Amino acid sequence: MPSPFDIIAFDADDTLWHNESRYQAAKSDFVRLMASFQPPEQVSALLDEIELRNLSLYGYGMKSFTLSMIEAALAISKGEISGKQIQAILAIARRVLTAPVELFPNVAETIAQLAEQYELMLITKGDASEQEQKINRSGIGHYFRAIEIVHDKTVATYEKILAKYHLSPQRFVMIGNSLRSDILPVVQLGGIAIYIPHEMTWAHELDHNGKLLTNSYYQLDRFEQLPDFLIRLHQSHNFNPPSASPLLR
Amino acid sequence: MPSPFDIIAFDADDTLWHNESRYQAAKSDFVRLMASFQPPEQVSALLDEIELRNLSLYGYGMKSFTLSMIEAALAISKGEISGKQIQAILAIARRVLTAPVELFPNVAETIAQLAEQYELMLITKGDASEQEQKINRSGIGHYFRAIEIVHDKTVATYEKILAKYHLSPQRFVMIGNSLRSDILPVVQLGGIAIYIPHEMTWAHELDHNGKLLTNSYYQLDRFEQLPDFLIRLHQSHNFNPPSASPLLR
Repeated sequence: MPSPFDIIAFDADDTLWHNESRYQAAKSDFVRLMASFQPPEQVSALLDEIELRNLSLYGYGMKSFTLSMIEAALAISKGEISGKQIQAILAIARRVLTAPVELFPNVAETIAQLAEQYELMLITKGDASEQEQKINRSGIGHYFRAIEIVHDKTVATYEKILAKYHLSPQRFVMIGNSLRSDILPVVQLGGIAIYIPHEMTWAHELDHNGKLLTNSYYQLDRFEQLPDFLIRLHQSHNFNPPSASPLLR
Repeated sequence: MPSPFDIIAFDADDTLWHNESRYQAAKSDFVRLMASFQPPEQVSALLDEIELRNLSLYGYGMKSFTLSMIEAALAISKGEISGKQIQAILAIARRVLTAPVELFPNVAETIAQLAEQYELMLITKGDASEQEQKINRSGIGHYFRAIEIVHDKTVATYEKILAKYHLSPQRFVMIGNSLRSDILPVVQLGGIAIYIPHEMTWAHELDHNGKLLTNSYYQLDRFEQLPDFLIRLHQSHNFNPPSASPLLR
């Protein structure tokens, strides 16, 4: 039976490999570094606020986060930050940027298996240089026929990708851990979205304004359930993509 | 007569719009800011050195440049940099990142004209978020059928792009101001490269290790010469792409 899917697309950060945990570790280091100026909760809240405010200017990624840490350090210390402390912030960034990529359990085997049956694509948000380096170091980059590194994942982003590869949404599967970025926009376009939640997902990625009905996307607990699940979808004669609610259009 | 070209691809920074001039302006601001610590030549040389050293870690773009300015400031001041001066560096970055995009003369009209006859693509290096913002603000983004924002422009990068779009190098035209990034790798692949030098091109982009023969690529002085030049190439019955030298292979 020919595959009813043209492309199986994956998010990368916190879907294939650890990412948020690194940002959390970097943030803990930063909070400790600022301990002499302000209590942890305040430092943490201010950093979050500055990070979100800077998103539209800086985009996603560790370099943006680092510039936000420096801006937060200046605000928290009322400009009294020392050169040594700024140096320590740059060291946090360097540590994260050079860390090895840690795949989630069973991801390597599952992706290898899926690549035998389907065309795989990676759609990831963030800084091109950081993402390319992570993909190269992940050891699984070669399984993906196409890699799209995008500034943000909105309905328009997915529309452009579908147009570029001449894909119809009904035959497009997107898998990821973010309701905001991987699931909602794909559901809105009438695509097939599979949500694999991860315990450490950036709060920003769980937030969404759209009304996302639970029967409009699929949800799996573990990555290694994917091959069987896709076969089940594939085999069901009346292949029935989750219908996008009119509310969402 | 059908076009002998499948795609006309363009570099963006310093090919379509001003970029290096902004980095130079940012650098001048930085040198002035560091004047109390060290003379301009030393500040400038150290910043260049740190910037190049960080390229493989940070990639291209203004955020990388900003982190390099902060690192240079720490080194130049021997850690004595003040919070206020760090703040001033962040302000330099913000100014560059929010500046309007200035197209070179005749670029808008020429691109509009070319888009009527050819499929246009943009292949630009650097930070996805910065580049997307520049493309959006440029007002000419919609003329490009595909946009590729890449970490670096090597032979492998172009090979991947050609494979992705099923393009043959002999029918692929690349236009840009960088011998290293736009011309040499395309010539090596047997593609058609058109070099439009710009007076302000980052020295790093002029450097290249390959032996680049002048008869292996075309050169134009002004962007608006492109439509006529492409027609001439197109009309020459014995359409004769510059031959890649065996030395380059």
